[in-house]
Amino acid sequence: MARTGRRPGQTQTREGILAAARNQFAERGYGGATIRGIAAEAGVNPALVHHFFGSKDQVFVAALNLPVNPAVIVDSILAGPRERIGERIVRLFLGLWQQPETRAPFLALLRSVANSPEVAQQLRTFMETAVLAKVAAALDLPTLRLTAAVSQMMGLAMVRYVLAAEPMASASDDEVAELIAPVIQQYFDA
Amino acid sequence: MARTGRRPGQTQTREGILAAARNQFAERGYGGATIRGIAAEAGVNPALVHHFFGSKDQVFVAALNLPVNPAVIVDSILAGPRERIGERIVRLFLGLWQQPETRAPFLALLRSVANSPEVAQQLRTFMETAVLAKVAAALDLPTLRLTAAVSQMMGLAMVRYVLAAEPMASASDDEVAELIAPVIQQYFDA
Repeated sequence: MARTGRRPGQTQTREGILAAARNQFAERGYGGATIRGIAAEAGVNPALVHHFFGSKDQVFVAALNLPVNPAVIVDSILAGPRERIGERIVRLFLGLWQQPETRAPFLALLRSVANSPEVAQQLRTFMETAVLAKVAAALDLPTLRLTAAVSQMMGLAMVRYVLAAEPMASASDDEVAELIAPVIQQYFDA
Repeated sequence: MARTGRRPGQTQTREGILAAARNQFAERGYGGATIRGIAAEAGVNPALVHHFFGSKDQVFVAALNLPVNPAVIVDSILAGPRERIGERIVRLFLGLWQQPETRAPFLALLRSVANSPEVAQQLRTFMETAVLAKVAAALDLPTLRLTAAVSQMMGLAMVRYVLAAEPMASASDDEVAELIAPVIQQYFDA
């Protein structure tokens, strides 16, 4: 997305919008923040925010430097048979962590969540509003079960990639999927 | 354990031993570090390390400021019927996180693990040597399944207490146990 020909003034405006977005998400949560409020704090026209980023979830992804848009991941998880959703989630997740260009920002995000209550609160309200509510509604699933599945995936990241405890750190993707996918599936089989 | 009558010199010696221990655990891993090596680096007699802390796992617990000794937890988890081990683990874990005096150091530890490769390496080698190998041998269980159970518990801590995502953050211990205990049990039913 980064255009090499971007003028300095544009970069500054973009950074100003992102800083305002981080403030607004931290203060109001993801659900409470608006493109209009972000634009007002940045001193720009709301149309400019749309022009740079698109929708609110895309502003969020840019503000927190997420390597992927969770909304897009959710779509690809929901597109497929429900009886194999555990397998799909684990395979997608392992694939993303395998690539250095997504792994590094994921690690940075885990660290920020652990360190900063503000980042934790931004990610939490985004997840609750833009991810969990959407998936729960699409699958008619209690949100508590969904957060349990999220907890298993987040813990897998901690043990396999952050703590790097053996033999989990060196296990193949197939071994991990064989072990974890049935558990995720179980959370989705209400 | 802290005695109010401890003399300043003793406190200094104790802190010196803990600093040396953190170095040794970071450099050699938990398995490679020895009481003798720690004593040598601190410039004291090994008997003094034993006097202050007891065994190597107790030095580790003090050095990383763990709120509980995992070795003691492991014993209490192993003491009981295997077909209810999932329930035991989840209940014990929720009980520990419920108490402010254990919750705060647990949170601090999660943060340190996420932030510092040295702390992650110390905790990893301790877990591998003093916890996972012990439990795997006692239960004749593949260690990979054990790390999967650890990952679920660690992720539960992240989502329920660090991220505090709803409805997991406000769910009762009973609701959480009902959901998570069968999964932990499944990992133990090889």
